Parts: sequence; structure tokens; C-alpha cells
Amino acid sequence: MNSSNFTQTTVQTRQAEARQWFEKLADLICNEFEALEKELPATFKELTIAQKFTRIRTTRNAPPGTDLGGGVMAKMIDGRVFEKVGVNVSTVYGPISSRMSQALMERQASRLNEGDQEFWASGISLVAHMGNPRVPAIHFNTRMFTTNSGWWFGGGTDLNPCIERQEDTDQFHAGLKQVCRQHSSELYPQLKRWADEYFFLPHRGRARGVGGIFFDDFNTGDWDNDFAFVRKVGQFFLDFYLSLVKIRQLEQWTHKERELLLMHRGLYAEFNLIYDRGTKFGLETGHNPDAVLMSLPPVAKWR
Amino acid sequence: MNSSNFTQTTVQTRQAEARQWFEKLADLICNEFEALEKELPATFKELTIAQKFTRIRTTRNAPPGTDLGGGVMAKMIDGRVFEKVGVNVSTVYGPISSRMSQALMERQASRLNEGDQEFWASGISLVAHMGNPRVPAIHFNTRMFTTNSGWWFGGGTDLNPCIERQEDTDQFHAGLKQVCRQHSSELYPQLKRWADEYFFLPHRGRARGVGGIFFDDFNTGDWDNDFAFVRKVGQFFLDFYLSLVKIRQLEQWTHKERELLLMHRGLYAEFNLIYDRGTKFGLETGHNPDAVLMSLPPVAKWR
Repeated sequence: MNSSNFTQTTVQTRQAEARQWFEKLADLICNEFEALEKELPATFKELTIAQKFTRIRTTRNAPPGTDLGGGVMAKMIDGRVFEKVGVNVSTVYGPISSRMSQALMERQASRLNEGDQEFWASGISLVAHMGNPRVPAIHFNTRMFTTNSGWWFGGGTDLNPCIERQEDTDQFHAGLKQVCRQHSSELYPQLKRWADEYFFLPHRGRARGVGGIFFDDFNTGDWDNDFAFVRKVGQFFLDFYLSLVKIRQLEQWTHKERELLLMHRGLYAEFNLIYDRGTKFGLETGHNPDAVLMSLPPVAKWR
Repeated sequence: MNSSNFTQTTVQTRQAEARQWFEKLADLICNEFEALEKELPATFKELTIAQKFTRIRTTRNAPPGTDLGGGVMAKMIDGRVFEKVGVNVSTVYGPISSRMSQALMERQASRLNEGDQEFWASGISLVAHMGNPRVPAIHFNTRMFTTNSGWWFGGGTDLNPCIERQEDTDQFHAGLKQVCRQHSSELYPQLKRWADEYFFLPHRGRARGVGGIFFDDFNTGDWDNDFAFVRKVGQFFLDFYLSLVKIRQLEQWTHKERELLLMHRGLYAEFNLIYDRGTKFGLETGHNPDAVLMSLPPVAKWR
């Protein structure tokens, strides 16, 4: 979709639609996760209380009297099943600062044009760290971004087991492939490769998990179709993870596996603090640090 | 000292002197820390075995047949007193790659000249994370750097209590002030300010600890005098920390204080992974990641 037919009215309608979806999806996820938290056996037998999400409002640093938007951070910690899970939704907007412009350029967000002065962004992001080392951690996020001259979507999801199970990896990728194929046949290999490149720690010479998909600057010219894809990624993530947790949480784990998990989380923290674009962007654009860093593990070890 | 009287012979003599000092100091520190590990009461009563340092050789990634130098990483973990302490010494050299040149420029290492093609660097770096939350963590490092055209020293030390004790902070800074005053009267305020600016987490709006001193590109033109200062910083660090640990390790601590410590270590990991120049430089120049990241805490929490 080029700027000529991207009228102010359609922008606002689409922004509203996208925002509603992200917020609805966040509520759905929180409800489903709370249900699992109640139903499934506890990771540690001393954890008897099923936890619930607590929600707090988050804001960006703004001059007094200025509204730059904000969001809601839903967090559940020390649960019977979920050791720490955060679901952030936020809708932020305002002038494009030079810092933000630089951060976007570093992200090679080619959709940013020179005349762009204002941005709007809405999205959902989620990271779940599970107590049972047999249950992989997961990351998922999707967002819509608009500037004066255009729009794009971004997002991704990747699976982070500390002990890889080939069948889980295969099922995750097969599902993502199917979601992508509904959009176009070339999409899955592209987005998988992007994830392989993105979720990689050069200093460790290894990936942080078993991959998934990653996309940014996503605009094929057909907003309805692109937005449908973004919704499908969200739906797939939720369906896949619910069924995975239901199976893997039933498994017995050992102390040695739990130690492996804590070390693997160290790697996860390294990735998020050194490389993750969303983290950098969030910290550099003055968003609430607790919301930006919600992805960090509840406990991690380095030896 | 300008390049004209910085002859090849004096360079080599000075490099050897500096290297010997860093290696000698590392041995001294390891011996003294092992003595404390034996003498002092254990943090957790189940820790009955006094640990010792293990040493492994570290190297930089180098093409086959190329020697780019390396070092020794001495590490002691799960000790009665020292939960994790790493003492790295390394001496590295070789061509200045564009990546390294960029990293040095970002560090505003003004001593780097355009014609410089080779570098040599030797140094010691140390981080101690203590099990007892009443005993502050500490960081210390000093190094000498030479290029084709000149030399400089760098380093610093900062104290990281999770519960600040004013008398410890005061004593640390008073000692550093005295060390600096022997060199010049303006030095302490300069290096303290540099540490205050450096050991700061903009995204948290706070310092990581109670400060100390930080210096880089340190070359007053008098190598002997500058090297004497570097040695004094090392001696002071060791004397101060030994007497501090001897006092604070005797104190009883609570579960709540231990939780505070684990959260404070999260902040420490954030600093090192997001901001620390030495970490960035080490990872970008292909040094052994385990040696570079040895500063990371043994266990950290994020809520």
C-alpha cells in the first residue's frame, strides 16, 4: 500500500483494529495461562497456590502534559507452572526523536522515510519462563508500526528448550510453515532464516534456542492480508504452546536438568541484553524499564 | 611520553614490566583469597569445603598458525566465602582490526593514531561475587595498552554492596583519594567523576554500586610515575578488600537480604551486558567468551 491511498481515515481504522486485536489476544493468553496454572501439576511440590496475572500500567518518559501512550504489563510470577511470564501490550506514539530514528535505521527499517516526523506503534510481546526444565521457554511478539507515510508489521516467535526434543521442534516449525504458506509459499523459508540469523549469539557461536520465525518491515501492499497473517501467527503461537505445556508439564524432571535450565537462562539473558532489538529500542526510547526487561528470566546462573 | 623517545627497546622493557606486575598481582590475590576462603566462617553452614582457584588458559580466535596472545582465567566458585570470583590476566597483541579500531574509537581512546597498525595489551581484571549479602561485590581492573605510536594505562575499581554501609563507602573512597593524591591533587575528583558517569545505568536511572575510580587513555608523559600509580591502585584494592571481607563475612544475614543480593546482581548483569566497554571490546575482538563474561554473577534474579 503506497502513501497515496493510505488516507488518514483508513490509518485510524487500521490502527484501531490492530490495537484491539493485540489487546484481545493478550486477554485470551492470560486467561488460558491462568487455567493451565490451576489445572496442571506443580513443578515444585511446595507450590500449592495457583497464581494469577497482576496488571500494571506502563508509560513512556514524557514531558509534563504530554501523552506519548503506554500500555499494560501483565505478569505472573512464582506460579505452580509458570515461574515467570510477562505479557505486555502497548500503544505508543509521538514525534520521531533522532534517537528513535537512529534505532530504527539500525534495525534497517527501510519503511522509514525522510519526511516522517510522527510514529504510532501498537503491539503485544510475551516471554514465558517455566519452572519445569522439560517445558521450553517461549517468546512471541507482533506489532504494527505507522509513520506519516506508511505502515508495517513486525514480530516473531521462537522456542527455547534447555533440553531439545526433536518432536517439539518439528511440530513448532511445521505449524509455522503452515501459517506462512497461507500467505505465500516463499514466506516460511525467509522468516525462518531471518529467525536463525536473529536469535544467534555470535560470541557463543550458537543459537539461543531452536528458532522459529522473525519478521520486520512487513508490508506486501495488502494490509488486510498482512494483518490476517499477523493474527494467525498469534493464534498459532497460543494453540501450540498450550498443548505443549499440557504434555511437558506432566514429566518428571531432575535436579541436573533444572541446573541446565538455569544456565540456559543465562544465555537467554545475554541475548536479550546484548543483541535484542526490541530491548534496545525500548530502553533507548525511554519506555518503562521494568516492562522492557520483563523478558529477563526469574533466576539465571553463570558458572 | 611522545613517540620520538618511545624506542622499541623501552617499549619492550615496559611491556615486560607491566605484564610481570599484573601476573604477580593476580597470584597474590588468588593466594590471599584462598586464605580467606579457609579462615572465615562459611556463608551457608552446608558449605564445609574451602574451595581453591582453578586456572585455565584463554586464547583469542586466531587464524591457524597465528599467535594473538592469550591469558589465564583463575576461577573459584561455590566457595564457603567466595560464591564466584574470577581473576583474568591476559596479554594480547596483533594487527588492529577495523572492528577493534572502531571499538577503541567508541571508547574515545584518543591515544590511537591513524598510522597505528599493531597493538599490544596486558592487564588484570577481577570480579568477586560473595555469598553473604553483607559482603559487597567488587570489581577491579588495570591494563597497559601500546600501539605503534604510544602507550596508555586504563582501569578502575568500584564497590557493589546490595545494602550500602556508609562507613565502607567512605573508607573505600578515602583510600582511593589517598592513592590518587600521591600522583596529583586533581586526579581523585576526575577519576571518581568518571566512575560515577561510567558505572551508571541510564535505563534504571541509577548507579550500579557506590562508585570508585575509572580511568582510560592515562598517559601523563611519565611512564614510571603512571605505572607506579597503576600498581598502587592494585595494592590498595587488595588491602582494602581483604580487610572488608574479614569484617563483613562475620555478620549474620537474613533470607530477605540474600534475595536483595540476587536482585542487585540482576542489575550488575544488566550493566555488564548492556554498557560495559571491556565486555563489548572482549566479545567484539574474539576473546574467549567465558573469560570475558566471567564477571557475570553466579546466580541472579529478575522479578
